[in-house]
Amino acid sequence: MIGPAHRKAVQLDGMAFLKAGCFSRTPETSKEFGVKLGLERARCYNTYIQMAAAESARKDGIDFVIVVTPNDSHYEICKTFLEAGIHVVCDKPLVSDERQAKELVELASRKGLLFMVTYTYTGNVTFKYMRDLIRQGEIGVIRTVMAEYPQGWLYNETDDGNKQGLWRMDPAHSGRVNCLGDLGTHVENAVSMATGLKIRRLLAKMDVVVPGRKLDDNDQILVEYDNGATGMYWTSQFAIGCDNSLSLRIYGSGGTLLWSQEESEQLILIKEDGIPRIIKRGSLVIPDSAARYARMPKGHSEGWLEAMGNLYDSYISCIQAKKEGCFTPDMIDYPTAEDGLYGIQFIEACLKSQKNNSTWVEL
Amino acid sequence: MIGPAHRKAVQLDGMAFLKAGCFSRTPETSKEFGVKLGLERARCYNTYIQMAAAESARKDGIDFVIVVTPNDSHYEICKTFLEAGIHVVCDKPLVSDERQAKELVELASRKGLLFMVTYTYTGNVTFKYMRDLIRQGEIGVIRTVMAEYPQGWLYNETDDGNKQGLWRMDPAHSGRVNCLGDLGTHVENAVSMATGLKIRRLLAKMDVVVPGRKLDDNDQILVEYDNGATGMYWTSQFAIGCDNSLSLRIYGSGGTLLWSQEESEQLILIKEDGIPRIIKRGSLVIPDSAARYARMPKGHSEGWLEAMGNLYDSYISCIQAKKEGCFTPDMIDYPTAEDGLYGIQFIEACLKSQKNNSTWVEL
Amino acid sequence: MIGPAHRKAVQLDGMAFLKAGCFSRTPETSKEFGVKLGLERARCYNTYIQMAAAESARKDGIDFVIVVTPNDSHYEICKTFLEAGIHVVCDKPLVSDERQAKELVELASRKGLLFMVTYTYTGNVTFKYMRDLIRQGEIGVIRTVMAEYPQGWLYNETDDGNKQGLWRMDPAHSGRVNCLGDLGTHVENAVSMATGLKIRRLLAKMDVVVPGRKLDDNDQILVEYDNGATGMYWTSQFAIGCDNSLSLRIYGSGGTLLWSQEESEQLILIKEDGIPRIIKRGSLVIPDSAARYARMPKGHSEGWLEAMGNLYDSYISCIQAKKEGCFTPDMIDYPTAEDGLYGIQFIEACLKSQKNNSTWVEL
Amino acid sequence: MIGPAHRKAVQLDGMAFLKAGCFSRTPETSKEFGVKLGLERARCYNTYIQMAAAESARKDGIDFVIVVTPNDSHYEICKTFLEAGIHVVCDKPLVSDERQAKELVELASRKGLLFMVTYTYTGNVTFKYMRDLIRQGEIGVIRTVMAEYPQGWLYNETDDGNKQGLWRMDPAHSGRVNCLGDLGTHVENAVSMATGLKIRRLLAKMDVVVPGRKLDDNDQILVEYDNGATGMYWTSQFAIGCDNSLSLRIYGSGGTLLWSQEESEQLILIKEDGIPRIIKRGSLVIPDSAARYARMPKGHSEGWLEAMGNLYDSYISCIQAKKEGCFTPDMIDYPTAEDGLYGIQFIEACLKSQKNNSTWVEL
Repeated sequence: MIGPAHRKAVQLDGMAFLKAGCFSRTPETSKEFGVKLGLERARCYNTYIQMAAAESARKDGIDFVIVVTPNDSHYEICKTFLEAGIHVVCDKPLVSDERQAKELVELASRKGLLFMVTYTYTGNVTFKYMRDLIRQGEIGVIRTVMAEYPQGWLYNETDDGNKQGLWRMDPAHSGRVNCLGDLGTHVENAVSMATGLKIRRLLAKMDVVVPGRKLDDNDQILVEYDNGATGMYWTSQFAIGCDNSLSLRIYGSGGTLLWSQEESEQLILIKEDGIPRIIKRGSLVIPDSAARYARMPKGHSEGWLEAMGNLYDSYISCIQAKKEGCFTPDMIDYPTAEDGLYGIQFIEACLKSQKNNSTWVEL
Repeated sequence: MIGPAHRKAVQLDGMAFLKAGCFSRTPETSKEFGVKLGLERARCYNTYIQMAAAESARKDGIDFVIVVTPNDSHYEICKTFLEAGIHVVCDKPLVSDERQAKELVELASRKGLLFMVTYTYTGNVTFKYMRDLIRQGEIGVIRTVMAEYPQGWLYNETDDGNKQGLWRMDPAHSGRVNCLGDLGTHVENAVSMATGLKIRRLLAKMDVVVPGRKLDDNDQILVEYDNGATGMYWTSQFAIGCDNSLSLRIYGSGGTLLWSQEESEQLILIKEDGIPRIIKRGSLVIPDSAARYARMPKGHSEGWLEAMGNLYDSYISCIQAKKEGCFTPDMIDYPTAEDGLYGIQFIEACLKSQKNNSTWVEL
Repeated sequence: MIGPAHRKAVQLDGMAFLKAGCFSRTPETSKEFGVKLGLERARCYNTYIQMAAAESARKDGIDFVIVVTPNDSHYEICKTFLEAGIHVVCDKPLVSDERQAKELVELASRKGLLFMVTYTYTGNVTFKYMRDLIRQGEIGVIRTVMAEYPQGWLYNETDDGNKQGLWRMDPAHSGRVNCLGDLGTHVENAVSMATGLKIRRLLAKMDVVVPGRKLDDNDQILVEYDNGATGMYWTSQFAIGCDNSLSLRIYGSGGTLLWSQEESEQLILIKEDGIPRIIKRGSLVIPDSAARYARMPKGHSEGWLEAMGNLYDSYISCIQAKKEGCFTPDMIDYPTAEDGLYGIQFIEACLKSQKNNSTWVEL
Repeated sequence: MIGPAHRKAVQLDGMAFLKAGCFSRTPETSKEFGVKLGLERARCYNTYIQMAAAESARKDGIDFVIVVTPNDSHYEICKTFLEAGIHVVCDKPLVSDERQAKELVELASRKGLLFMVTYTYTGNVTFKYMRDLIRQGEIGVIRTVMAEYPQGWLYNETDDGNKQGLWRMDPAHSGRVNCLGDLGTHVENAVSMATGLKIRRLLAKMDVVVPGRKLDDNDQILVEYDNGATGMYWTSQFAIGCDNSLSLRIYGSGGTLLWSQEESEQLILIKEDGIPRIIKRGSLVIPDSAARYARMPKGHSEGWLEAMGNLYDSYISCIQAKKEGCFTPDMIDYPTAEDGLYGIQFIEACLKSQKNNSTWVEL
């Protein structure tokens, strides 16, 4: 699913075009696939190493690469392209451990390259609006955060030959975490980007619930933030009836914000009068900082694709600005390698707490 | 609020009538209030001790007493009436500590008296239906439970002279807990009565969040049940936009049940096909064990009063059966002193965990 | 259903008590039923004629009578009690034709008696709040009204021996209309009482849809009001999935109001910014003119019974004021005989339009 | 809005690419705009007449043209391209009168060309699923249809310089209808394509409500279908709070279907048990005839763009099949010129009824 989704999102606004690629470990498959996508045969590479070398050597070489391979290969591939001087977009979770993540952050910074980690949901117009309202103090001081991301597709122990499920459950491919890496990192990132809060300490209960599994499929986390606020995170892969139910409920001293990925065409704001206000994506009250990403008027739904497209919109604008020499860091409106690193530190802390019988771990 | 609510609920179906009472610590106030309610002056008592003595001596004395005084007086009053041989209904939380609760349970049992603790929400028709579906195995083995009870009315630090709020926040009246006693016990009881699961161990983070308070106003609890399932509980009193939002989400190996007190005219059942089915109170699919409590057809809303009335319906039927000599314990369809005791044990465990830096406590 | 419902509603706030009655056409049945309800045997009458005579002769005779017999008997019974000087409450639709209705209105007025027609749903706190907002001009000039009341319980042609359904479908008992009389009059009344608009003209399409029926089970009506605004009304008895779905959507030049009987714990107000505000029954923004009817705080649901109780609350207060000599007509906050008459005129106009191939009929 | 939206939708799945165009009545503007979109300068034409001639002469000429000009120019442009042997996609409403529509239908048919009218909303996966369920008899015989399409953006009499609003309200550009043409045709088409019912007769009340307007901004229509079922249609442009609220409620003898464009990620099916089942786009119960259009798994929202893309998906597949000689008419899964013609006949009938004081008009 994820490869075509990125291509459609990149092309949505015609800001960038696919020009080169490496699509398989089998050279001939890679070439044929690329040609079918409309690429020149010469720019369909056998390996990512060849690709990085050749494209960085070309005058019309690619501006950025998108890494959507299995998680355990992210580190090597990202590093190779960064060293070749090419901007990098990488799927989450960024890498397998904190050391690798720090290295990529440091490398991108040293090379002056832009690195985006595709936490898709932060691209929604309503998500950005929620973030803006919080920054402006619209709900006062944040007191508690309820965040969750349950799915239900892996409720069945036999998994019915569900290949992606089997892959995710295999420690050989997924490393030390399954559900926490796939869903938990989205929760952590969404809270972090929406609220600006940093985690002071957390405790985690990671469970392997469905019989026959080796990795966590249900995670519960208690959080304490740097401002003293509290949080609860929940992720699950066996919650029947939940499709892709990332949601945030943020309670402040002056109001509440409710945002749900599956209902991302709206944001609910409740002020001290206790009256929910349902603000639709496209409403005139949404400031330009969020509204400028919308393509369609109210009532003409945007969805997952547009959210991902919004990340690329900002990312490609930044690359363009770099080329034109007018880039400034405040232009960045997408999740960066630093956000990816923070996600890895979050995973490490949860694993440590889980190992220590769910006791507190400082971040 | 709570006194008149109980009276209306008792009288809703004409199964019992107010015949005697003690309504104030000031004798004259008590008398006047009782007379205004239509009582004989002679049966408006100065003290509960007088009342228990006089009523137990009368041939036409009351069948049961309802105790809706502040929490710290429950123990003495209940004990007095039980000793006088009168059945007792008591508001939750039952008493202040486990020892008192055990004593009342033991006393009622020894005297052969019926003791109801008014966990109102378990009286809803849809709540009983949820419980029945779980018992029948409709959602398979329970894997995880998400339960919460946020309110928002105490979000303001000054409380604007809110008297009930001030009373609840004062350790002199509320004892060692505030939010956990008022809301957390409802969460514990609702999960327990709906699922039949027992808590094996729990860990709690109890916070005093709004500045100037002395007792908890936000509680987060991780739970492990006797069958290995996990649970998360949340209660809060400053969640702006939440009125009285007790809700359960119960995820099993074969389906999911979603129940919300504020939407208690419906229950949502999701089977393995992932399709939510919205079952209305009054639907013909609801079996008689739950449906028999309904007074009105579908689309004619029942609410809080009817839920409370349903508790009294079962309780008074049991008393009637006792009188007629045909009572059997399986007729009990209301929360008992044992449930009240379990609520106190739950509070004790949370307090112990909180004291020990949120580590696990066995129940 | 309707008898016990009225009794519970009357007793809800302890403002009135059942003291006399005639409960059946069979004398012995009437007596036994009344005694079971706690009445003196002497005040359980064989006929309504006896009852009117005897009660008006008693010093402690009843203040008002409640008429919940089949529609075709309303006129004679109401007239009898009015002539005996007793206030009358009557179920809707008031009577069978306009002449009878006008006579009752005139008779009550001449005798100085209070006459309530129990359009239950106008008793909801949120309904009253909607009316108040419109009166204050909160949504500007009303431009169009969408009102409907579909039910689904009579979708089946065999009706499965559903007795109430058979009765309603029989012209011998229901007269010339079925669905329009049962549901359409509620729609007309709800719009009229909420908006204050009068119908200038209407056209109606009344259909007998389910095979084997003799009276309308689906009605569609186009309306033009005195201020030039337009309206659409729909009622049906075979709309599977609809329980008791009376709803109003009122669109003005400055805002919109959405009210639904099945969700009557809330009112939705949308101002020119297009943002729905969900206002809960119990919200502090609701003025005392509506809020004073509430018994329970927010989040503690009130339902059908409380709505009906609110009608009796105002009605009995007015009777009390009459007794105390302080009654003024602006105290009336319930539907009157005039409202009942207007409902009959509405039915007549619909029948006339239907007969004339759905052409316009002036009111 | 509409030009870019079509381009994005066409390119969504990479099945077709923009190769030529005429983008303005000013030659230079047209060329510059086309070049900016990546076209060859030679294929950016000054007039649509030039374009039709030149492209039909090229060996690599365009396969189909998309006509998204103001309504009053549709007829001439479509005719020109059809005569040049080029397949045509045209926005709705198709043309200004029935004669023109019939001519285009006949011309396309004679030339063997494919003609799509972009009733976008019929492209939704859930819409197609609804249609399939009805065809299979899942809700029995249809008895009544409630369909509406209110918007709120033109509630204000001054329109605040809203250019599109002014254009729509001007008879010189919009012809004889405004709201009915823009929204009413969508309602007619959605009902027609979902149910397969044909209108036997209708009556209409078309109103110019907001002061200062010359064309209808609120339309109410009563419908009788060929199977005897009834329908009610409503469209409005001043319904504050409504964004783009096309919805269908279809009541049959065996069930009900509820579909709403703004919630098009789900379809609600209610069978005789009265229990709403919320079926999500992506659910495994959706058959391939509808499911094959989905690009994303459940919980990853698709929206307006994907609905439009689905129309192009089927249309371009049919053109491809034509080229390969394997086309059969049952492959058509998009609205055709015949559907466009039917929409024009619907408008004509409404206008005639309105002129005759809302009396019945046969179709």
